[in-house]
Amino acid sequence: MTQSLKIGVNGAAGRMGRRVVALVHEENGLEVGAALEYSASPHLGADAGELAGVGHIGVPVTSELGERVDAVIDFSLPAGLVAIAKLCGERAIPLVAATTGLSAAQRDQVLSASHTAPLLLAPNMSIAVNLTMKLAREAARVLKGVSSGVDVEVIERHHRFKEDAPSGTALKFGQIIADEMGQTEHVHGRHGQPGRRPQSEIGYHALRTGDNVGEHTIVFGMMGETIDLTVRGHTRDSYAHGALIAARYLCEQEPGLYTIEEALGL
Amino acid sequence: MTQSLKIGVNGAAGRMGRRVVALVHEENGLEVGAALEYSASPHLGADAGELAGVGHIGVPVTSELGERVDAVIDFSLPAGLVAIAKLCGERAIPLVAATTGLSAAQRDQVLSASHTAPLLLAPNMSIAVNLTMKLAREAARVLKGVSSGVDVEVIERHHRFKEDAPSGTALKFGQIIADEMGQTEHVHGRHGQPGRRPQSEIGYHALRTGDNVGEHTIVFGMMGETIDLTVRGHTRDSYAHGALIAARYLCEQEPGLYTIEEALGL
Amino acid sequence: MTQSLKIGVNGAAGRMGRRVVALVHEENGLEVGAALEYSASPHLGADAGELAGVGHIGVPVTSELGERVDAVIDFSLPAGLVAIAKLCGERAIPLVAATTGLSAAQRDQVLSASHTAPLLLAPNMSIAVNLTMKLAREAARVLKGVSSGVDVEVIERHHRFKEDAPSGTALKFGQIIADEMGQTEHVHGRHGQPGRRPQSEIGYHALRTGDNVGEHTIVFGMMGETIDLTVRGHTRDSYAHGALIAARYLCEQEPGLYTIEEALGL
Amino acid sequence: MTQSLKIGVNGAAGRMGRRVVALVHEENGLEVGAALEYSASPHLGADAGELAGVGHIGVPVTSELGERVDAVIDFSLPAGLVAIAKLCGERAIPLVAATTGLSAAQRDQVLSASHTAPLLLAPNMSIAVNLTMKLAREAARVLKGVSSGVDVEVIERHHRFKEDAPSGTALKFGQIIADEMGQTEHVHGRHGQPGRRPQSEIGYHALRTGDNVGEHTIVFGMMGETIDLTVRGHTRDSYAHGALIAARYLCEQEPGLYTIEEALGL
Repeated sequence: MTQSLKIGVNGAAGRMGRRVVALVHEENGLEVGAALEYSASPHLGADAGELAGVGHIGVPVTSELGERVDAVIDFSLPAGLVAIAKLCGERAIPLVAATTGLSAAQRDQVLSASHTAPLLLAPNMSIAVNLTMKLAREAARVLKGVSSGVDVEVIERHHRFKEDAPSGTALKFGQIIADEMGQTEHVHGRHGQPGRRPQSEIGYHALRTGDNVGEHTIVFGMMGETIDLTVRGHTRDSYAHGALIAARYLCEQEPGLYTIEEALGL
Repeated sequence: MTQSLKIGVNGAAGRMGRRVVALVHEENGLEVGAALEYSASPHLGADAGELAGVGHIGVPVTSELGERVDAVIDFSLPAGLVAIAKLCGERAIPLVAATTGLSAAQRDQVLSASHTAPLLLAPNMSIAVNLTMKLAREAARVLKGVSSGVDVEVIERHHRFKEDAPSGTALKFGQIIADEMGQTEHVHGRHGQPGRRPQSEIGYHALRTGDNVGEHTIVFGMMGETIDLTVRGHTRDSYAHGALIAARYLCEQEPGLYTIEEALGL
Repeated sequence: MTQSLKIGVNGAAGRMGRRVVALVHEENGLEVGAALEYSASPHLGADAGELAGVGHIGVPVTSELGERVDAVIDFSLPAGLVAIAKLCGERAIPLVAATTGLSAAQRDQVLSASHTAPLLLAPNMSIAVNLTMKLAREAARVLKGVSSGVDVEVIERHHRFKEDAPSGTALKFGQIIADEMGQTEHVHGRHGQPGRRPQSEIGYHALRTGDNVGEHTIVFGMMGETIDLTVRGHTRDSYAHGALIAARYLCEQEPGLYTIEEALGL
Repeated sequence: MTQSLKIGVNGAAGRMGRRVVALVHEENGLEVGAALEYSASPHLGADAGELAGVGHIGVPVTSELGERVDAVIDFSLPAGLVAIAKLCGERAIPLVAATTGLSAAQRDQVLSASHTAPLLLAPNMSIAVNLTMKLAREAARVLKGVSSGVDVEVIERHHRFKEDAPSGTALKFGQIIADEMGQTEHVHGRHGQPGRRPQSEIGYHALRTGDNVGEHTIVFGMMGETIDLTVRGHTRDSYAHGALIAARYLCEQEPGLYTIEEALGL
């Protein structure tokens, strides 16, 4: 019988951290080995499973990683990630880090853990989003040869509270496609008399509606036919699922820096 | 046994006129009574059915309306419409006019036919588009009362050769909704840091891809749920079908000005 | 200054009841007046706000309605609904009831409350679903006159755990349309050599994928154009929002039986 | 200056053949070298460009391939394909064949041309459909490893006159995915109490509406997220465009049998 992998969750009382605790607890072959929060957290001492809504699991929230864990998943804040990365580097513990908003200096500090531990740092761990990016790249590679031309448009929908537009994910889709097909202009909506659409454009269309979790559609429009690739998140669990896969993957790797594409087998 | 209605087609050698000829010929209870073109048309004398790809129908293209017809359908040019409207007014022949781009003076000239003949003037005769406008109006009327707010976005797709954006139909959808719900800002795409989306906005997103005939999606986004109303044209026949319905309708009306909504029973 | 309406929530510790507590608490003009559960509930005495994840609100879960409330919203079980309906009838308290699965006898018992209190009983309180049903009815009414025919198809998507197919909501959409257009055959998927599609059919297509909350698309397909009406639930809050609207509505009515369409202004 | 490739079109007066003539004529680097029909065709002697609606091109429809051509594109009937394949084999002319409905014996006869000429035989030459099949295969390969499971559903829409269901293309999508993921059950619609959806199923949903040219959506549904791959034909030109690409490709190959995937660079 194989032992379950023990997962440390950094940021365990946060919105994403609670979901990671719940999903690790429910997944065959994984168990919650430690639940970490910053030293002033009001949740220290609470049971991580109860916070996560899955009942008592016997793992109290703590600010110190005392237990042996097989990997750490981090959904915290930049300072929290820097601290845990230092620790993981020292103890050679694989680290999956999803925290965004790092300064360049913080990013360097985090990356240095990869000298002594397997490290994966990705802003979006969604399996579906990362896979769809791969499909979009492949479609762009093939379609650039269509002599009658291919028009690329990116539609995204997010909730009304999102303050930037378009989403970083939409821009990344556009960049991946432009790298293959060579478009040089990125336009955001169209208004007035833009005239005939040039092939050198990628159009972005950012909708903001209700509490939409996030949806991206990549349109490849041709004479006579159209391909739409749509990826839609229903819940934030999509980010957590990918982190679990990444943690399992890192447990089998040598120290070094890995990509989410590698972890997901893309 | 009832007699078929004889339909005169003005602009019979044009792209839309040919389709009207074909559909009138194929429709039970209708027949092509006359096929009209301007006096310098290279198609004068050709059989209208052969031009339309439905075989010989014994109706030559002519520049003079000699035959008695029960109604005229016009897909021509402004000058052609003005001329046929004068004739229809004089002879009390019902007239369905789809020609766009009239000057104010031309429009007045056309409208004066309604004193003596039933007249219907509409830029878009599509049953589906006009019905969807009615549904959007009804949705807006109901949803304006939702206390947690409703975000309205209009997405449209047309072919890459279309030079203006968004489509006139998209703008009309937005106006219908704003008339009910009171939005005062019309934005075209989003880029940068627009911040939280205000309820006072309608967003428009104009995609230009391949040879797309035309597609409009109206999004009503709420907390917890979303309604999308999508209307899509596959072929330009959608405009012709509505004109046939309008012609039948006008044949049973007194002189006067009628709307496409009335003709379609909306 | 107007007083907030005090809402009693029956089934307050259940999945939907907790969301109703949270949304009532957050809504201007409403407050949680009482939180009810059955007498053996393990949650008796707990604070309803804490259960609902919105913090302490000073309303303990109880099995007896002692406080004066302006209306009750019920998301419980048949026996719980029968009991609260009796009480509401005796005290002339408006009752919004969403519980399903009632026997005929239970249903009669619940309905008898309408002699002395305003009552609304609906399996699906979603604003978007009920509005889309109205739009589908209107579309069917108009489109039945299209001489070239209209093909109706209903696609629904729900999570993989749903055991029946198609959804009750999909069947209700079909029935509403058939009542207008006269289709007599309801087919579920197509396989083999069904031959040309007859106009007398409505087709249903039940997808079961992941954790999809629920999505219905009604397709009206014509020669040359297509209308798709799509309504999608992101979270179960969509059902709770409609119940709040219904409660406000009942507070201004005389005793009697009301429909969700009336409450939503459809 | 490079010479244009001369393309022979077999079945040049048929619906697809006319479109191939038109598109070859309009494409840079290609020209119509010959237009072939069977010996009893009423179109013999007519100008192929006029039949195709692109004006006089000086290429009469004939039943004998007298001219030198660089490649032949065939959209004819089985007997017509067998005859042209024999000729292409004898003269080492590359042949792109889209005709379907061959008997096993006819198929063998056609294939024997590949000993002496480059040959490509494919029922669907659409770039978008063939590319989307490749994307679906790649998605299936990656997603089979998702521990929480992936539910695959195939939706297709075609016109009301199509007599079989689901489309051959839908079944091929399903087979490609099953080959990667191992599903063993293919279900067509769902009705009654199917119970929880097993992972071993692929569901097919065949809609028949209006004059829909053809649309396929492959749904990969997961916990928390969904991918939809949609490919939609607007006109039958999509099949012709792929045939042109294939003809160019074969002109640079040695004798042998080639696949549409190879020709499209998939």
